[in-house]
Amino acid sequence: MKIAVLGYGTVGSGVVEVLDVNQKLIASRAKEKIEVKYVLDLRNFPGDKIQEKIVHDYEIILNDPEIGIVVEVMGGVEPANTFVRKALEAGKSVVTSNKALVAKHGSALLKTAREKNVNFLFEASVGGGIPILRALGSSLTGDEIEEIAGILNGTTNYMMTRMFYEGANYEEVLREAQKNGFAEADPTADVEGQDACRKIAILASIISGKYVDFEEIYTEGITKITTEDMQYAKALGMNIKLLAECKHVDGTLYAGVAPVLLHAEHPLYSVNGVFNAVFVKGNMLGDAMFYGSGAGKLPTASAVVADIVAVVQNQGRDIMNFWSEEKLTLEDRSKTSKKFLVRIRGNEDALKERIGNDFGEVRFVEAGVNGEFGFVTPVMTEGEYEEKAKAYPEILHMIRVEEEV
Amino acid sequence: MKIAVLGYGTVGSGVVEVLDVNQKLIASRAKEKIEVKYVLDLRNFPGDKIQEKIVHDYEIILNDPEIGIVVEVMGGVEPANTFVRKALEAGKSVVTSNKALVAKHGSALLKTAREKNVNFLFEASVGGGIPILRALGSSLTGDEIEEIAGILNGTTNYMMTRMFYEGANYEEVLREAQKNGFAEADPTADVEGQDACRKIAILASIISGKYVDFEEIYTEGITKITTEDMQYAKALGMNIKLLAECKHVDGTLYAGVAPVLLHAEHPLYSVNGVFNAVFVKGNMLGDAMFYGSGAGKLPTASAVVADIVAVVQNQGRDIMNFWSEEKLTLEDRSKTSKKFLVRIRGNEDALKERIGNDFGEVRFVEAGVNGEFGFVTPVMTEGEYEEKAKAYPEILHMIRVEEEV
Repeated sequence: MKIAVLGYGTVGSGVVEVLDVNQKLIASRAKEKIEVKYVLDLRNFPGDKIQEKIVHDYEIILNDPEIGIVVEVMGGVEPANTFVRKALEAGKSVVTSNKALVAKHGSALLKTAREKNVNFLFEASVGGGIPILRALGSSLTGDEIEEIAGILNGTTNYMMTRMFYEGANYEEVLREAQKNGFAEADPTADVEGQDACRKIAILASIISGKYVDFEEIYTEGITKITTEDMQYAKALGMNIKLLAECKHVDGTLYAGVAPVLLHAEHPLYSVNGVFNAVFVKGNMLGDAMFYGSGAGKLPTASAVVADIVAVVQNQGRDIMNFWSEEKLTLEDRSKTSKKFLVRIRGNEDALKERIGNDFGEVRFVEAGVNGEFGFVTPVMTEGEYEEKAKAYPEILHMIRVEEEV
Repeated sequence: MKIAVLGYGTVGSGVVEVLDVNQKLIASRAKEKIEVKYVLDLRNFPGDKIQEKIVHDYEIILNDPEIGIVVEVMGGVEPANTFVRKALEAGKSVVTSNKALVAKHGSALLKTAREKNVNFLFEASVGGGIPILRALGSSLTGDEIEEIAGILNGTTNYMMTRMFYEGANYEEVLREAQKNGFAEADPTADVEGQDACRKIAILASIISGKYVDFEEIYTEGITKITTEDMQYAKALGMNIKLLAECKHVDGTLYAGVAPVLLHAEHPLYSVNGVFNAVFVKGNMLGDAMFYGSGAGKLPTASAVVADIVAVVQNQGRDIMNFWSEEKLTLEDRSKTSKKFLVRIRGNEDALKERIGNDFGEVRFVEAGVNGEFGFVTPVMTEGEYEEKAKAYPEILHMIRVEEEV
């Protein structure tokens, strides 16, 4: 099997490395030798052993009938989308790690792949090395998946971990993450939750079998999380994580990204640092969790290579056959239910009496932060909460609370 | 697709229930309706809706050309092995949850399945609902798996969790586990590690591609773990878990089952209660973990049904094609390396001096247990440890320590 790699950046060079280091093992599993014939990149890499494989013109790859698999690891929506579409139309299978591409054009590209009887696989686009897409598609097939909750962004999880365990503040940990290479110079996509949003859109599409538009997913990042919030989390025996969730509500699906307070017993509570994890609840299976490196050159490349092996093992057989072009209308956030932790400032006695009257059986929390206190509401819909909260200009911050599992 | 279920016990009735409750969903994934035609059991179940499907004679199933899949959930080696072999020889695929059968006859049965171009799948035999076998076989195919460490027995994990968190003693928690139905009247297979041993044999076979004889695996249960051991674990900031491990050592594989001290940072540290989890280290992927219900009617049945769906989806295609009949010679335990926690009683000053001389840079531990102290050795082979320990009749107990990951 001859393949072409589009993009010789971090993931692309990782794919070449994994195929090289584990060559024999991979050939024995694929029952075929897998050989990189071309690497597409605008740059040259003099001295690198792939230099002789470098091409600058995609047409060479497209028109070479020997190429059975195109590996797209360039990132970004264009020209990746055009390249992938053309490869599929030419009857070549495609493997990608590109979440932006899959979230935006996954449904259409899967349709093209089906029409051409080739595969379009994207395990590495969600959770890096964690084999969650294949688990959902080929392993948890006896279950209705009722809920997925994931820590899907390593940068923000690293930041939240340091804020929680070391009491560091947001700006401080962001600077440090940038220095360590865990956060980019422009961290917007990570800290605003956009990266996690695209990944949960892909997961929601897979469990619903329909197209979920990531632009319709409620997304709240971690930029407003403070050291005081972490003090409240500790007072409650909880941790704050940026959770990307989708769950069945009233016969449809809700999807959202937001910081959420987790109980110490929740399987995601102790997922720390740059690690990612995906919690899955099936109606028969119960609770399960998948944990691993969510990013990084080799873990991501490992997932890309596993997809390449899957394509070779499944020639002529459609693997990702459970995601149609039909669009899913997501449940309105205001109808979903949760508990809410509210931090509030003002005349404590008067406020507590009003809060008890308005919110019902709340649990008051003292976190040792001067001049304020907190309370956890009973379970209510987001709509109800917002309605009630309107009457309290004294509210400083609200963070959602995951109910005990 | 018409199937037959052998055994209408806990798992068998679970399989019927999962197929019933999720019928539509499963048919859409399998692209075919899956129908239970026969249930083999010695008993009758008057009033149960499967009563009309009950047969007492296996020949009826074997001779019915409509039956494409035989689901063996009877447990035990015989007659399960004979039934499964005959089904495969008759060209029917087989799905089983039977770890005793797979550990003992897996290689031979897989060979028969290959010869007949049918599948023999056994996801539910390891880790209940956790899809670890398919992950190793179809997802982590770009990696050399360097190490697997699993909490593979829910009964003992429940017991160890209670001993750790509540200071309860072994006899007390065993009695309670029996009362709750988490432990059987004869708990030997669980508490002596035999159940975990069969499961790690299956995992070792899958990652090596060779037959691993479970009778050659070093197996130590939890019967000698005391409340004092737990006090030492706490003093070290660690937890004790019954770990089933296999790892590459000197070009071959070591496999063993024993109680092991885990650091708080280890992904398995916080796997509590009846949950199971499997930690996997790949040479490219790095660390990953799979977590879920290791037993129970519906989680186990969920894994069995997922295998049934996989058989339907992969007709004519060999899924478990990476386990030959060739026998693997396991690495001798004496050559594997670890740190060791040793509890010892005697003249403290004199002992400490001798220990320092004999064991090198040890870490002494005070756990507040009267008349004794502990020490953690540097990394050494089991052979070296045993040799040195011979000179110390004062040693009360030794527990292995997992190095930091």
